[in-house]
Amino acid sequence: MSNCAGKCDGCGEDCSRRDFIAKQNQYSDIKHVFGIVSGKGGVGKSLTTGAVAALLARRGYRVGILDADITGPSIPKMFGIKTKARGGQDGVEPVITASGIKLMSINLLLEEETSPVVWRGPVIAGTIKQFWTDVIWGDIDVMLIDMPPGTGDVPLTAFQSLPIEGIFIVTTPQQLVSMVVEKAYNMAEMMNIPVLGLIENMSHVLCPDCGKQIPLFPGNGAEALAKKLHIPLLASAPLDPYLAALCDSGEIERINRGYFDAVAGEIYGKYMR
Amino acid sequence: MSNCAGKCDGCGEDCSRRDFIAKQNQYSDIKHVFGIVSGKGGVGKSLTTGAVAALLARRGYRVGILDADITGPSIPKMFGIKTKARGGQDGVEPVITASGIKLMSINLLLEEETSPVVWRGPVIAGTIKQFWTDVIWGDIDVMLIDMPPGTGDVPLTAFQSLPIEGIFIVTTPQQLVSMVVEKAYNMAEMMNIPVLGLIENMSHVLCPDCGKQIPLFPGNGAEALAKKLHIPLLASAPLDPYLAALCDSGEIERINRGYFDAVAGEIYGKYMR
Repeated sequence: MSNCAGKCDGCGEDCSRRDFIAKQNQYSDIKHVFGIVSGKGGVGKSLTTGAVAALLARRGYRVGILDADITGPSIPKMFGIKTKARGGQDGVEPVITASGIKLMSINLLLEEETSPVVWRGPVIAGTIKQFWTDVIWGDIDVMLIDMPPGTGDVPLTAFQSLPIEGIFIVTTPQQLVSMVVEKAYNMAEMMNIPVLGLIENMSHVLCPDCGKQIPLFPGNGAEALAKKLHIPLLASAPLDPYLAALCDSGEIERINRGYFDAVAGEIYGKYMR
Repeated sequence: MSNCAGKCDGCGEDCSRRDFIAKQNQYSDIKHVFGIVSGKGGVGKSLTTGAVAALLARRGYRVGILDADITGPSIPKMFGIKTKARGGQDGVEPVITASGIKLMSINLLLEEETSPVVWRGPVIAGTIKQFWTDVIWGDIDVMLIDMPPGTGDVPLTAFQSLPIEGIFIVTTPQQLVSMVVEKAYNMAEMMNIPVLGLIENMSHVLCPDCGKQIPLFPGNGAEALAKKLHIPLLASAPLDPYLAALCDSGEIERINRGYFDAVAGEIYGKYMR
């Protein structure tokens, strides 16, 4: 590890984050880590995380999901997980989904899935770190981190402590959402985390009777935002009742619509060769 | 102020919270305080807050909104506010909207609305307290607090420090959302905050061509949740592009659809006589 203070011109490397990065435990070998971020809540971060993880697992990669949304975790329900994580002397074992994805989420540690986690930020942030250091992840090709909304303790800790190679930012066409999403982009910039692309969710809804594409929000906020921030708009997913049903029934791994293919493609095309 | 530890059977009063309640400043006289809460992000807390505030102001009440979503504030944009809050020796002056609603939000204090607030939880929670103690609110009949998602520092501090008479919980029909929303309900229960009703958002969307009500999510999670928690389902609002347009153009005060009337009615009917 470097002894310098970072951001100097000395060696040409960006070492500003490296000294804070938490170590994996001896039973983990995690090769690539990406964050799914928004700043805004309810735009589809967990849906994106679950769908992209499923697509990567289908291609044979060993995938993990670290659910960093401690006070509003959606991941276990989306994968239909009813079991709990088990701990031993060496750490906590992640729960494994139908297609072999390894999960860790606070809801895998709570007796009741509706129990609130009423903790102050630093405790929540400590949990995220433990999900990295104390979970026996084993061999993981790609780890996706499902971030909570906001720019508070959790993204701050994740950006500082985990070796995130880049993040994908999720948004909707609504301008009000773009404004908050831009805060997350600016946070990532401040912390030297590469932003790999934008994902638009709720782009429209399809009328099941007349087939018309009904726009849900005026304007085209996502395209405008991608242009403004100079990042690619990788995906544009409608608000599809089929996806909501997959999430509610815990079957996100069965997704057979191509909305998120380009996001998975970006990961295996650029990083997994 | 009581000297007892609270929750005893001694005097029959619920004094468990009273010792933590922060004082208003000498220039504020706030009569009723309600929280708009969800646990889940992106379900329409700010929309509900803005719409209900507008309806109350239209009936002649003096209304304030404390935007407690420090890392994802939506309120100023929804009201088309472009000015900033000004501070003086005695405190900070709220910004006043077209219809006379007084607002305080972190975005009224930031130079750029897209600047991220990268703070740890206790600092964020301290800001909420200052929005109560250091803002010159003047005479307010009803103060609405727009809460952030989650059950972390901000709701914890708000529930402990502000004299909230009750909260309204916002949800959507999606079961996955219900699970997270129930966490917020259970947090309120733990902290002896009365839950006054449930508000369903995104109940459906109207096809502009064939007029068909398109359900966005399978099932009827909000009705089931209201029944389970024994609270009234006060409102059921569709995902209406007209509302999204009002929010994006900063004209929420012009709302002329009755989706949230019952929530405003609950407040002035039961509390303002």
